[in-house]
Amino acid sequence: MKLYDLELSGNCYKVRLFAALARIPLDITAVDFLDGAHKRAPLIELNPWGEIPILVDGKTVLRDSQAILVYLATKYADEAWFPRDAAGMAEVMQWMSTAANEVQNGPASARLVDKFGYAIDKADTLKRSARILPLIEAHLAGHSWLALERPTIADCAVFPYVALAPEGGVSLSDYPNIRRWIDRVKALPNFLAMPGV
Amino acid sequence: MKLYDLELSGNCYKVRLFAALARIPLDITAVDFLDGAHKRAPLIELNPWGEIPILVDGKTVLRDSQAILVYLATKYADEAWFPRDAAGMAEVMQWMSTAANEVQNGPASARLVDKFGYAIDKADTLKRSARILPLIEAHLAGHSWLALERPTIADCAVFPYVALAPEGGVSLSDYPNIRRWIDRVKALPNFLAMPGV
Repeated sequence: MKLYDLELSGNCYKVRLFAALARIPLDITAVDFLDGAHKRAPLIELNPWGEIPILVDGKTVLRDSQAILVYLATKYADEAWFPRDAAGMAEVMQWMSTAANEVQNGPASARLVDKFGYAIDKADTLKRSARILPLIEAHLAGHSWLALERPTIADCAVFPYVALAPEGGVSLSDYPNIRRWIDRVKALPNFLAMPGV
Repeated sequence: MKLYDLELSGNCYKVRLFAALARIPLDITAVDFLDGAHKRAPLIELNPWGEIPILVDGKTVLRDSQAILVYLATKYADEAWFPRDAAGMAEVMQWMSTAANEVQNGPASARLVDKFGYAIDKADTLKRSARILPLIEAHLAGHSWLALERPTIADCAVFPYVALAPEGGVSLSDYPNIRRWIDRVKALPNFLAMPGV
């Protein structure tokens, strides 16, 4: 099972992190991102969106980091990481949407500006960060983990770009519950780090 | 099972549409959105994010339209709408992320500006629309439905704000595959419309 990967991408890190925690072996292939390898053949044929990560497992080819987490958890991991009952699955799903939208367009995009020089409106990323982080902070006042009373793929989806927020000039100093949650994730057995985390 | 709803919201319409197609009965409660009822008690206690739709089914309270689709499909609908195998589920999940991010921040947000006067950067919403719609168009050149060879909750999640794109000044005239897909969705048994669709 091959993961087309970039070490500095938080979206790729979501996958590497969960695979490490759930002890799922991945054949990791580094993509020459600066040279635009993800924008041309053969990768653009695997993912017409021109993005990474890409997961290839036999005939299954997946382009979205949240979908890859669902795939790996359903096929290769203990059900504790992604429940099969409707209510539990939906609790996880809420945070997958949060990872795909609010976190991606907030702290993740702020980091794209500061660290990689993307032409994105920095003020907008800071505004979105200032909206989503207090919501996560308030949620974590009453919960140890995001979706259920244990770590799930919801935590793996949200963790990378929240933990990397300071790299986009978004301080976590006002969010003690988030900082404690980050420490809990880091203390999980087989936790895997990345630069900046 | 209660849905806190706004008729003109595409996110609420995702839920109403799927419930209609799958013949799931909903007790629909209209929220006084203009008066800000979703921003104060009792709704803010059900959804601290201050958004609708909100679904309440016994002890289960859900705030995200994609998560609500997953919940309803898993608990109350035929498996055809949301498969339980890893690959099929992940195919659907890819489009749930697309609905939550690219469609929400593209055509859905363009409509928020034009129709409701939201203070969002219109140029950014148009740029995002011009990126996501050609990707969907190209995908639909080889597929009748978004995720699988049949309609699923992926179609219900993406359909509303793509079909409503002209209300945000985003024309679909250059996207014949999308227009045919819209017609296929509209021809489904028990299809439910909303104003503008």
